[in-house]
Amino acid sequence: MRLSQMLFVTLREDPAEAEIPSHKLLLRAGYIRRIAGGVYAYLPLMWRVLQKVSQIVREEMAAAGAQECLLPQLQPAELWRESGRWDTYTKAEGIMFSLVDRQQREMGLGPTHEEVITAIARDMVRSYRQLPVTLYQIQTKFRDEIRPRFGLMRGREFIMKDAYSFDADEAGLKQNYAKMHTAYCNILNRCGLAFRAVDADSGAIGGSGSQEFMVLADAGEDEVLYTEDGKYSANVEKAVSLPPAAEASPFKTYEKLETPGTETIARLSQLLKCSPTAIVKNVLYQAVFDSGRVVLVLISLRGDQEVNDVKLQNELTKLADQYGGKTVLSLTVPDAEAQAKWATKPLPLGYIAPNLDDAYIKAPKPMPAGQVAVNPVTPKFLRLVDQTVVDLAHFITGSNESGYHVVGANWGKEFELPKLVVDVRKAIAGDRALHDATQTLQTARGIEIGHIFQLGTKYSEALGATYTNEQGEEKPLVMGCYGVGVSRLAQAAVEQSYDKDGIVWTTAIAPYQAIVVIPDIAKADQVKAAEALYDELSQAGIETLLDDRNERAGVKFKDADLIGIPYRIVTGRSLQQGKVEVVKRATKEAQEVLVEDVVPMLKQWLAEKD
Amino acid sequence: MRLSQMLFVTLREDPAEAEIPSHKLLLRAGYIRRIAGGVYAYLPLMWRVLQKVSQIVREEMAAAGAQECLLPQLQPAELWRESGRWDTYTKAEGIMFSLVDRQQREMGLGPTHEEVITAIARDMVRSYRQLPVTLYQIQTKFRDEIRPRFGLMRGREFIMKDAYSFDADEAGLKQNYAKMHTAYCNILNRCGLAFRAVDADSGAIGGSGSQEFMVLADAGEDEVLYTEDGKYSANVEKAVSLPPAAEASPFKTYEKLETPGTETIARLSQLLKCSPTAIVKNVLYQAVFDSGRVVLVLISLRGDQEVNDVKLQNELTKLADQYGGKTVLSLTVPDAEAQAKWATKPLPLGYIAPNLDDAYIKAPKPMPAGQVAVNPVTPKFLRLVDQTVVDLAHFITGSNESGYHVVGANWGKEFELPKLVVDVRKAIAGDRALHDATQTLQTARGIEIGHIFQLGTKYSEALGATYTNEQGEEKPLVMGCYGVGVSRLAQAAVEQSYDKDGIVWTTAIAPYQAIVVIPDIAKADQVKAAEALYDELSQAGIETLLDDRNERAGVKFKDADLIGIPYRIVTGRSLQQGKVEVVKRATKEAQEVLVEDVVPMLKQWLAEKD
Repeated sequence: MRLSQMLFVTLREDPAEAEIPSHKLLLRAGYIRRIAGGVYAYLPLMWRVLQKVSQIVREEMAAAGAQECLLPQLQPAELWRESGRWDTYTKAEGIMFSLVDRQQREMGLGPTHEEVITAIARDMVRSYRQLPVTLYQIQTKFRDEIRPRFGLMRGREFIMKDAYSFDADEAGLKQNYAKMHTAYCNILNRCGLAFRAVDADSGAIGGSGSQEFMVLADAGEDEVLYTEDGKYSANVEKAVSLPPAAEASPFKTYEKLETPGTETIARLSQLLKCSPTAIVKNVLYQAVFDSGRVVLVLISLRGDQEVNDVKLQNELTKLADQYGGKTVLSLTVPDAEAQAKWATKPLPLGYIAPNLDDAYIKAPKPMPAGQVAVNPVTPKFLRLVDQTVVDLAHFITGSNESGYHVVGANWGKEFELPKLVVDVRKAIAGDRALHDATQTLQTARGIEIGHIFQLGTKYSEALGATYTNEQGEEKPLVMGCYGVGVSRLAQAAVEQSYDKDGIVWTTAIAPYQAIVVIPDIAKADQVKAAEALYDELSQAGIETLLDDRNERAGVKFKDADLIGIPYRIVTGRSLQQGKVEVVKRATKEAQEVLVEDVVPMLKQWLAEKD
Repeated sequence: MRLSQMLFVTLREDPAEAEIPSHKLLLRAGYIRRIAGGVYAYLPLMWRVLQKVSQIVREEMAAAGAQECLLPQLQPAELWRESGRWDTYTKAEGIMFSLVDRQQREMGLGPTHEEVITAIARDMVRSYRQLPVTLYQIQTKFRDEIRPRFGLMRGREFIMKDAYSFDADEAGLKQNYAKMHTAYCNILNRCGLAFRAVDADSGAIGGSGSQEFMVLADAGEDEVLYTEDGKYSANVEKAVSLPPAAEASPFKTYEKLETPGTETIARLSQLLKCSPTAIVKNVLYQAVFDSGRVVLVLISLRGDQEVNDVKLQNELTKLADQYGGKTVLSLTVPDAEAQAKWATKPLPLGYIAPNLDDAYIKAPKPMPAGQVAVNPVTPKFLRLVDQTVVDLAHFITGSNESGYHVVGANWGKEFELPKLVVDVRKAIAGDRALHDATQTLQTARGIEIGHIFQLGTKYSEALGATYTNEQGEEKPLVMGCYGVGVSRLAQAAVEQSYDKDGIVWTTAIAPYQAIVVIPDIAKADQVKAAEALYDELSQAGIETLLDDRNERAGVKFKDADLIGIPYRIVTGRSLQQGKVEVVKRATKEAQEVLVEDVVPMLKQWLAEKD
């Protein structure tokens, strides 16, 4: 491709809209243009990168036995109502764009395709003899992000590869899941990315287990915790660990003490001269279930620990059927306005005890017989206790009276231990690993570019997608789903590989592998040599750009560095010795090479990279 | 690919939802599945066909000098307001799906991308030195069709290739247009389709000239008129011609005659024993402009002719600025209800004269000074006269009195000839061609799979996309746009090539070129020979399916015919003579071939097709 014929414009200044290096560089180097918030046009150079990533994805999907298809982006609301996700996705979380067509039928723009693919499987899969089968697609998806940002990292329109496996049983699913795990590692390795596969929360997708593939980068939105021995890594949302051991409580006798101004653990431990690890703190949450029920949750955990909202939400989801629902729509710490709706009197905030009285909650309004209560608030605290406090003795905690705490308290004596013991604490760097207490958790930032899920039968049961097994019994299909953010991966590659002059692509996903630069197009010998090299390189199957623009040499060198083509060939002064300059973009290492050696040398370099 | 591992289900019965053969066959053969009205999933076989068509399109676009990119599907309303198309596309015609995001911003789902690409050009193109440049994309597009039907033919979600050229002047545009014309002919020829390029109406896209590429098929929704000499072909919406010569009027003297019950031309000509060609009929239309103005249009044309609504709408659009607008939102024959809104008294329908009195139209309601009249109806007929009546003498026409016509009338005597002479008649088969009156127009049905437009400066002026020319002057970019319906083309190929047993793909776009069928998987020699051939064919670069399913041979042969793979190889009884059966799908021609000859023979056949 001749640069003179390409729609190619670079910017000298960092665009105001961009915050992180990869976003700035893709804009400056003319790869993308913003059309609306979180919505970008992929210009020709970017499109080539995306095609290269897609091709690697296709090859690895084929190797994993998956077949390519293309599913609709417009999805009927009915399918999402069957899975129970329509309201969550369009209203509660609101991340699915929705519209009504001219017949006033509701439709969503697909952020994911579990419903559609399950409906197809319901229609087409009858027998165990058709299993296993895995389908995938590479497609533009949509999410109405609350805060689209970082360019292609968190866009509202983005390219995904999503795959869905169907198996007869859990064993089959595990095999497919393992194949996809391998495929994902291969994809990231082939793209030349440093990454980590981590245990992850399954979120709104659901299922029994999932892992994320994190490209490591400081600008990553996710935090990863891992151990040096390589045996554990997890998203902080999911991570488990042993917290530091608790220190003994200095109070051996139960008593109530006046502790004014100790609404925080820091102040309380300072006043009482005790470790935060000897304190039981009691945190109030308000959960709204999809059934409409509002449940007040009182969590007791160790004073030095924080609640991991994702873990707590998962624990509550397990209890959803008790509240007539399937899932938690929202989980918040109730503010004064929220409290006013259900509290009978001001709460002793900062001094709450594990046994806060249910009388703080208004009873449902009595209604005539046969009608349902108007007040959706469940008039009883749901009491949960984190593992960290179960073994504490003589602990310090609230007294349910503002300005007072109790000390020297014990479970089974002054306080009943809540029945529901859970792990909802946030693991942090420095915690001990569960698999080996000598390993401490390390922290890193990551960009999630892949997520694989063992869905199980969540969608097949909801939509009635069954098959007949060898014994003639009807069974729900066992599913997995597997996503890669193709456009996000491409930008993550930049975030991991750039320098002060611009992007440094790996040869695997660079838009072109080589660029031939004519320093001065007024010089016939430079043009002639460059044109010849351009032809030779192209004929040798090396994707080559020719910078034949009427620009100064300095501009051309700057642009070549900015767009990040791996190998630059300059037909400059050394032509008189029959040589050209060959520069490696990554290292800036330059050498004078005989013209006839250029193609063999580049072929060898490219072969080594493969 | 092994059929046993593919998600592959064929249907024996025609699905109720399908009307035309290609739609039935694609459903029956497991290529597509309906997800919502006009919204289909492309299953693995279909996806391969679409990829093959796309690859041909890509190669021809590259040959025409176009660069691939990918533009957003979500488009901000503001861009469409700049071009003036937002209301037309979302309200009047309503073919663009629209939604509001969580910030309550309006967005449309792109049915086409003139606005987006022009905004990008406005941003990136500064100088004539960057021109010409052509960008294209292959992308899923959306149209909220009033009546989605015929499967992929008229879907609400479909795959298009759309290209946009930017030139410094009209001469450049014409060169790019010609290149695209060639590229489109190449694409259709390579796909093996019989087609015709026809003059077309530019519709809502606009611009000065356009051509459609019609794949000829009885199920086509479009009518094409053409001459046998190959020099003229046009969509009926656009076609021009010479109508049959008019016969002389039998009435030489002007008089008014009682003609009861002659509301139709047929009855009038019967009663008066005159040719319909001697009659001037006067047809009333009601046009609504985007300014909100309603204009009543009185068209006079020859009694044997019909009005072509598309041509009439184009003529009215030219007059739109007189009515404070840019375009015509709707054009209808006003029914009784519509007439009641603006008519002062009942109209003499069936007896209207070219000089129908403007007093039939209510005057705008007088309003207090400074306010605009409430009545949007323009209180004067817009009088147009079709070319066909300009030269008529002694003609018969209405009298403006029910039950009476006048005869022997002449322009300039009894009736003033309206100033606006236009061509709004519908050309029909049998008309004489303009370029050669000895040629008569023929008719054919076509499926529009491509449309190329000389847009000119419509969008660049509206959006302010300019460049600086060699003289340093700022000029609007001169644009062309070029669309191919990729998914529609794939189905059109089926509509043009099938038989009673199923689809007959050409080798260029068949999902696989060959299928090896094992008649009985219980027979080891059949399996062994098939597996060996499958490997050999695949290694020779021939895309091959292996039907290794545990099914009866008859089912397999039926399925192979249904899915339409060009070459079928059967490892059956003749294996004992070292032979297999090779069957050409198109002709059903079968031959026994030595196993070792299969690959060379197929390679030769495939080379001949290329």
